[in-house]
Amino acid sequence: MISAGFSSAFADEGMWLFNNPPLQQFKEKYQFEPTPQWLEHLQKSSVRFNSGGSGSFVSSNGLVITNHHVGLDTLQKISSEKNNYVRDGFYAKAQKDEVKATDLELNVLMSIEDVTEKVKAALQPNMSGEDASKARGNALAQIEKESREKTGLRSDVVTLYQGGQFHLYRYKRYDDVRLVFAPEGQIAFYGGDPDNFEYPRYDLDVCLFRAYENGQPAKVEHYLKWNAKGPADGELTFVSGHPGRTDRQLTVSDLAELRDQEVPYLLNMYYRREAFLHAWSARSFENKRRAQDGVRGVENNRKRYDGYATALLDPEVWRLIEQREQKLRDAMNASAEWKGTLAAYDKIKQAQEAAARVLPVYNYFEQFRGSPAAGYRAPRAFYSTLFQYARRLLRHGDEMSKPNGERFPEFRDSYKESLELELFSSSPVYDDYEIVKLTDSLTDMAFRLGADDSLVKQVLAGKSPIDRATELVTGTKLKDPAVRKQLYQGGASAVSAAKDPMIELARLVDGPAREARKAFAAQDEIKQQAYAEIAKARFALQGTNTYPDATFTLRLSYGPVSGYKEQDKPVAPLTNFAGLFKRSTDHNNEPPFDIPKRWLDRKAKLDLNTPYNFVSTADIIGGNSGSPVVNKANEFVGIIFDGNIQSLVLDCIYTDKQARAVSVDSAAITEALRKVYDAGALADELGK
Amino acid sequence: MISAGFSSAFADEGMWLFNNPPLQQFKEKYQFEPTPQWLEHLQKSSVRFNSGGSGSFVSSNGLVITNHHVGLDTLQKISSEKNNYVRDGFYAKAQKDEVKATDLELNVLMSIEDVTEKVKAALQPNMSGEDASKARGNALAQIEKESREKTGLRSDVVTLYQGGQFHLYRYKRYDDVRLVFAPEGQIAFYGGDPDNFEYPRYDLDVCLFRAYENGQPAKVEHYLKWNAKGPADGELTFVSGHPGRTDRQLTVSDLAELRDQEVPYLLNMYYRREAFLHAWSARSFENKRRAQDGVRGVENNRKRYDGYATALLDPEVWRLIEQREQKLRDAMNASAEWKGTLAAYDKIKQAQEAAARVLPVYNYFEQFRGSPAAGYRAPRAFYSTLFQYARRLLRHGDEMSKPNGERFPEFRDSYKESLELELFSSSPVYDDYEIVKLTDSLTDMAFRLGADDSLVKQVLAGKSPIDRATELVTGTKLKDPAVRKQLYQGGASAVSAAKDPMIELARLVDGPAREARKAFAAQDEIKQQAYAEIAKARFALQGTNTYPDATFTLRLSYGPVSGYKEQDKPVAPLTNFAGLFKRSTDHNNEPPFDIPKRWLDRKAKLDLNTPYNFVSTADIIGGNSGSPVVNKANEFVGIIFDGNIQSLVLDCIYTDKQARAVSVDSAAITEALRKVYDAGALADELGK
Repeated sequence: MISAGFSSAFADEGMWLFNNPPLQQFKEKYQFEPTPQWLEHLQKSSVRFNSGGSGSFVSSNGLVITNHHVGLDTLQKISSEKNNYVRDGFYAKAQKDEVKATDLELNVLMSIEDVTEKVKAALQPNMSGEDASKARGNALAQIEKESREKTGLRSDVVTLYQGGQFHLYRYKRYDDVRLVFAPEGQIAFYGGDPDNFEYPRYDLDVCLFRAYENGQPAKVEHYLKWNAKGPADGELTFVSGHPGRTDRQLTVSDLAELRDQEVPYLLNMYYRREAFLHAWSARSFENKRRAQDGVRGVENNRKRYDGYATALLDPEVWRLIEQREQKLRDAMNASAEWKGTLAAYDKIKQAQEAAARVLPVYNYFEQFRGSPAAGYRAPRAFYSTLFQYARRLLRHGDEMSKPNGERFPEFRDSYKESLELELFSSSPVYDDYEIVKLTDSLTDMAFRLGADDSLVKQVLAGKSPIDRATELVTGTKLKDPAVRKQLYQGGASAVSAAKDPMIELARLVDGPAREARKAFAAQDEIKQQAYAEIAKARFALQGTNTYPDATFTLRLSYGPVSGYKEQDKPVAPLTNFAGLFKRSTDHNNEPPFDIPKRWLDRKAKLDLNTPYNFVSTADIIGGNSGSPVVNKANEFVGIIFDGNIQSLVLDCIYTDKQARAVSVDSAAITEALRKVYDAGALADELGK
Repeated sequence: MISAGFSSAFADEGMWLFNNPPLQQFKEKYQFEPTPQWLEHLQKSSVRFNSGGSGSFVSSNGLVITNHHVGLDTLQKISSEKNNYVRDGFYAKAQKDEVKATDLELNVLMSIEDVTEKVKAALQPNMSGEDASKARGNALAQIEKESREKTGLRSDVVTLYQGGQFHLYRYKRYDDVRLVFAPEGQIAFYGGDPDNFEYPRYDLDVCLFRAYENGQPAKVEHYLKWNAKGPADGELTFVSGHPGRTDRQLTVSDLAELRDQEVPYLLNMYYRREAFLHAWSARSFENKRRAQDGVRGVENNRKRYDGYATALLDPEVWRLIEQREQKLRDAMNASAEWKGTLAAYDKIKQAQEAAARVLPVYNYFEQFRGSPAAGYRAPRAFYSTLFQYARRLLRHGDEMSKPNGERFPEFRDSYKESLELELFSSSPVYDDYEIVKLTDSLTDMAFRLGADDSLVKQVLAGKSPIDRATELVTGTKLKDPAVRKQLYQGGASAVSAAKDPMIELARLVDGPAREARKAFAAQDEIKQQAYAEIAKARFALQGTNTYPDATFTLRLSYGPVSGYKEQDKPVAPLTNFAGLFKRSTDHNNEPPFDIPKRWLDRKAKLDLNTPYNFVSTADIIGGNSGSPVVNKANEFVGIIFDGNIQSLVLDCIYTDKQARAVSVDSAAITEALRKVYDAGALADELGK
């Protein structure tokens, strides 16, 4: 069913906060009453990948399992033309062979503290949007800094309910992370783009890293026990991970803007990128290797937002969205205490209209949406690693002259270590790939703003997009991490003195981009306050047994393993290895349905009845990739890697009619490690 | 060099009218003086493919050679899951085996008559744009109808110089056309999208049809002799074909609109279509087969407009465009007689601004640009064969109640036979392919106009795009040619009575679409008059030794076989079969660089030194595909199939620095027919 509310008793809905879990639903529907220790163990076994995904500890020696597509960012960065780990896979037979990631940060949530009142106290009534935004920034920075200094933990204040609550999350950071195992890309992403977001599915979408501390494998207290059988059909399972973003509590007017403006904007961007990246990749094997991570990301986003658009244009979905809002409005209207809150809806619409003025520049240069949901989120344009370095160096120099609370959030003291990890990364940067991406980005800018626009003319500096991109990429010194480190440490004066062309480009767009961001933030602050009012009314009128929209922070979801019907035909909840070989045969073993040689060679050794992938009704979204799936005994029985196509509606509304979370079965992981990859030692370590 | 004018004596510029050939340039630069008979022979040996391309007669028995990618439309329509001529190729060993096309019309230009004064006489001074548009339509229809009745030939009045001249073209029509030979798609389009618009090249992009009259092979007087050696490096060659559209005489303001609005609009459309067609094609071999023609067209247009965008954003190109206009403006300004014509530039800009009001609807539903440059041009949306049938039937019914001169041009009496050929086509229509295209088109409409737009709401009728598309495609009876024929013959009342859902959809959008088209046409008329004034001034001030922008009518281009330099490295003008095998080896024979089995099997029999593809400086553009390349002796030495990537600037300006036309060498065609395809009889017929 599709749920019109947020806490239907009939559906396995919700991305629940660990400090407000759905104990009532667990008890009433599943007669399950987890202890506080059960919850704490799952929470502290869960790992956030700041590159944009989830994972979990699966051994006392810091072994972390995640999806191959979550690890892909790192696999790409540590690969070369000679060592193509993405294509060929990797297994470190001995600990000394494990390969260090260039800039991967893992976070483990250690505690949650409600700081809503502290944040609210910073705001005075009748402050302008701009003043309130500044006051709020100061308050958040202060709380984070104090916590960081007191505990030594990474401390982030998380905005929940679009501004209705503020919780302080403290994380243990790991920034020495090493690759242990990855299968061939082709089996991890078997079926490629055609099978992405589809089911039945046959993907070994896993890889394993190890967290290190002080040069030694991290000794962790909380890690999941391994269940090598996987879950049964109908068995209740739990998912602990980091869903990136949902829009379920947005107003109808905000969702209409998303439907008519933002999603089409993003799709156009991804369609463009997909076309030129495919074209460039097809020219040579090495081009393909260099762009493969980019291609995958773009294809995935295109399919995801296409599915979201389909949902938003479905009148049944839209009717439920309208009903959801109307139900709350009616309740407000019927209440003397909350009637005045109805005005908040108008405030949101007005702020949205006021922000539209700066949207062309804001959307092109600053907007985060569509970027990987990471702790540090990179503004959108230009589409170039070197430009992103340049802008961070420039802004870091400028921002550090301000008090901590007045900086852009990504330059607050609390993010210093994460920023440095990314900025000093030794990841390879390829001139040709940079040029092709930047050329497209400059062309897109001319399309979106018009070639006669004065900013466009300044940026292109009298050159064609390709000539300008070539000049910038070949002229900059920022490819060298040592240069970046030196400019970072030298601050604004060193950054200026460098006269680096990419930094000068960043400076050129920084004025208009900051102006747009400031204007947007002022309207966003007005929205936050209005959403806070609505949230307060919702708690009062509809209760607090609910959950906020996803924010790339730890959440708990649940639901049984469960098939569904498609065009009246049943779709079985579990697949097996036999199905993999059949699907390949049905497609003449042609890409993207070809099976890696090692699998063909070992076919006879495999138990073809081994369960491979399964679906459940758990409420998940992008960012949940790599989340552990556990049973009531808190044992690892699978790992989330996708949703089916019908699940893409979950951005804005929950349904368990056909929407399903897709996981790799723990049984398949064990069987493959032992029989295909001769990685018995690794299989033995799981859960130990 | 890049030419700033239109008739530089230094460059082989121009798509010349056969009634105003560049005799002076031929004589001065190449000491060549073709006789009127030479020109007439080439003209009447040339063939227009109304599906969007060129060709030529190469035997007295009506044998016509064109590109594989021009014939592809027909190859697709006559193929099935069992007989996949596109993939496998085809050769009719006996005449009885030749396969009849479903709706292919060939045109041969028999005469040209200047009717400019007749058309001008219809316009009164100070008429409104709308009245003038109507008066002009009447005059054109009258001229065409009289000519058709007098001669029995298809008679089209062609608008040249954006309205500066009007010429009556009379064509002999062939509508019984049969497939004789096609190679495998993979060798015809070797290198696929990555190699499209690139050079060096290795494509056997040819196929052969035969024109029939009264059920027998057409006996033609004019056909080209076959030269089995091909041209030498540096040899002067001539190209006779049908370039589709160029924009060289547009004003700077019109070109700026093209650069900032129209080209980005088209590219977004093609990016979208490419993404969803690729995704759908990847699901099964049969999907891929059904969509392959569509995919090719979309990929080709995407790459073409991407190249055009690159040119328009190149400041050197833009400077020359501005200089070209400024030079003429300066000459006007210096002349008492023509100074007043400067006002025409403002009129064009004003008309452009006035038309912008209706552009969202006009662009989505009616605009022709980006459609195949055909005699009958289908308006843009919706992207569905069945919808296009429905709209034609609806409009035919409505338009036939009007006098001939007041109808939309595509329903004038002179196009009757062409319209019926397309409308009664027995080409297969696949429900699943129709649904996926229409779903995308409805989604795109919601994106472009907004889901709350009243027209969008009416069109979707309370359903999601996929549900609405499914309902329409499965509900319509228009898949059956007999039903279409019956509704066509029954006229407006039968069309109404049918209550066919697809026709009802066409009716729903017809009001707003007609309104936008009418408003656009009124502004276009104002533009035409202003362009006519500018053209008159140009003739007076810069001479008449010039040529109009391309209009998918017969033109003569010329230039020697000539290599060029790329990044200071020389690119040789000719490739050979040895190069084909090497390119495959360099890419591990992986798609799209794989070589068909038959070619691998016959490799030893082939003379690997046979010239395969070559480049020349001839001035060509899309629509020239399939044009014969002849030598001074009027012998067939090759066939145009592409331009290199640097040639995509030719839309707006000529250059021979790197821009090159790409052809298949006649020697390669002969060698392949004899040694690979065992088609010696066909090779023997060439030129006989």
